[in-house]
Amino acid sequence: MRATLMFTAGDVRVVEVPEPTLQRPTDAIIRVTYACVCGSDLHPYHSLEETPGGRRMGHEAIGVVEQVGSSVEHVRVGDTVIVPFAWSDNTCTFCRDGVTTSCLHGGFFDGAPSATQAEKLLVPQADGTAVVIPEGTEESLMPSLLTLSDVYLTGYHAARTGGVATGHTVVVIGDGAVGLSAVLASRLMGAATIILMGRHEDRTALGREFGATHIVAERGAEGIAQVIEITGGEGAHVVLEAVGHLPAYEQAYGVVRPGGTISRVGVPQYEEAPVGFRSLFGKNATLTGGPATVRAYIEAALPQVLDGTIDPGRVFDRELPLDEIAEAYRLMDSREALKVLIRP
Amino acid sequence: MRATLMFTAGDVRVVEVPEPTLQRPTDAIIRVTYACVCGSDLHPYHSLEETPGGRRMGHEAIGVVEQVGSSVEHVRVGDTVIVPFAWSDNTCTFCRDGVTTSCLHGGFFDGAPSATQAEKLLVPQADGTAVVIPEGTEESLMPSLLTLSDVYLTGYHAARTGGVATGHTVVVIGDGAVGLSAVLASRLMGAATIILMGRHEDRTALGREFGATHIVAERGAEGIAQVIEITGGEGAHVVLEAVGHLPAYEQAYGVVRPGGTISRVGVPQYEEAPVGFRSLFGKNATLTGGPATVRAYIEAALPQVLDGTIDPGRVFDRELPLDEIAEAYRLMDSREALKVLIRP
Repeated sequence: MRATLMFTAGDVRVVEVPEPTLQRPTDAIIRVTYACVCGSDLHPYHSLEETPGGRRMGHEAIGVVEQVGSSVEHVRVGDTVIVPFAWSDNTCTFCRDGVTTSCLHGGFFDGAPSATQAEKLLVPQADGTAVVIPEGTEESLMPSLLTLSDVYLTGYHAARTGGVATGHTVVVIGDGAVGLSAVLASRLMGAATIILMGRHEDRTALGREFGATHIVAERGAEGIAQVIEITGGEGAHVVLEAVGHLPAYEQAYGVVRPGGTISRVGVPQYEEAPVGFRSLFGKNATLTGGPATVRAYIEAALPQVLDGTIDPGRVFDRELPLDEIAEAYRLMDSREALKVLIRP
Repeated sequence: MRATLMFTAGDVRVVEVPEPTLQRPTDAIIRVTYACVCGSDLHPYHSLEETPGGRRMGHEAIGVVEQVGSSVEHVRVGDTVIVPFAWSDNTCTFCRDGVTTSCLHGGFFDGAPSATQAEKLLVPQADGTAVVIPEGTEESLMPSLLTLSDVYLTGYHAARTGGVATGHTVVVIGDGAVGLSAVLASRLMGAATIILMGRHEDRTALGREFGATHIVAERGAEGIAQVIEITGGEGAHVVLEAVGHLPAYEQAYGVVRPGGTISRVGVPQYEEAPVGFRSLFGKNATLTGGPATVRAYIEAALPQVLDGTIDPGRVFDRELPLDEIAEAYRLMDSREALKVLIRP
């Protein structure tokens, strides 16, 4: 079968690989019908070292179940399922807490032996991981349903762990697909003011449609000053950081209100950062977030997509066949595309 | 009058200074009847640079009101009041949110022109800052009431912002007076397991009386391993960091459970610290805390002291007159005393 491998920064290729086979009784194998490229795929696209065997890419998928292991009970051959970017048993102590990305038997598809930008995918812990899409669901809803495997629910995770609530002033840093999703989730949670910090006009335009009330294109000290002015000198109750680079984090603590919360979902490309008296501590700011616990949210979000309450699939502005995925990476890296849907 | 000044690290003296006078219509002046030395006073005691004019010390006090400004309405001459370590108007937007340490008209006594380790104290924003102790309150309760100006409610702030709840496993890092207060507050909030990390046996003994179920004397990797073992490999729901040095913070993210919370109240003696995938982000850990918003908690805690629900004044193991305050600093710095009560 064909699968996407990255061999070094900037070198993405579709190559022929062996089909996955069931490894454990809890596995399933799906034929991938929808996949996509994630903003976080651009991190290795910029920095991956020479990897002779290639790194398997992709962690978002919808597919049709083709085989199940002997102990799989809830997922059946023929089901169309959403597969989140991390697998989890959905029964361990951390899953029961809702922290499915820390599952004791879990893992992440990205870089795993089987990843989603491919014709077929091995899904470990299939009963815990895969969520069945009701039979007869319109094909036009699939892009929005695909966003429940990562991007929309990552934006949602930011807003939820940040504690966005009715009447809040929220700042979203980053106008990528996760940032725009965080805007949509914040509107859903009742935020009164949503300030989107981003400078790509086509993206911030969608941000306005998703619920942003203000756009701030400036960055750094000037961007912070503008947010402080918009908020009457007070800062934001919640800041959702959807970038992952240190300057975005610095903006976050610059605009957060005393007693407010910064929630990060952009995978941090740094380990150390300011957290002392001058940044977080002095104003009793809270720092939260992490890998989105997507699996814990899918059941609640799925009906919202089916009934049209949310349409997060609008973040896809291009569609390409799997064979042209290298072009999808290029388009997203150059900001010519917001997010590219892939049809294997 | 006599007041405590620090002139350089280790050099604390009681010297004669002018009595404070009312500066603004919102001020009051109190005669200090109880003060004390704080663990955070030991930071400048170790590191203060040569300060020829001296730095005024102390930020915890009970006193009797001697004068009030023309616009002071609620506090009256003759009242005995608790003065928190920060003053606040208690009416601004941040005070209404409960973040009294970020009051728009607020400030900190420590290092201010008038501080509490003295015979008299200028209290700015007296109506917002001072809380009246009911007339006729027994003198024996005054040490516990004095802890509401900082130490007990700082421990309480850690537990509250950390979200300690019934059944939780809580780790408290630091067996100083704030750490012990955090143990007491955690017990009050229903924590099932309270692991106190500290190695001074006289202090951890009081920690056990306050509610600690386990004591871990080891630090660093070994201390982390012990906590992980006690928690069945899972880590703690909430970690209360009451030290302020980087190794304590490193212990905190080492023992926090996925999805758990670290709450810091030890004033960080560092600005940068690990917050990336390997420390906080990967396990969706939350970092919260800051200067305790003591003023917001006093009304609720005062009756608990009066009716004997809590007895946080047990952290005072020595009492000295103001003139001997240099000895109080020495005793606390050498760990010969846990916390010293000062009678001006």
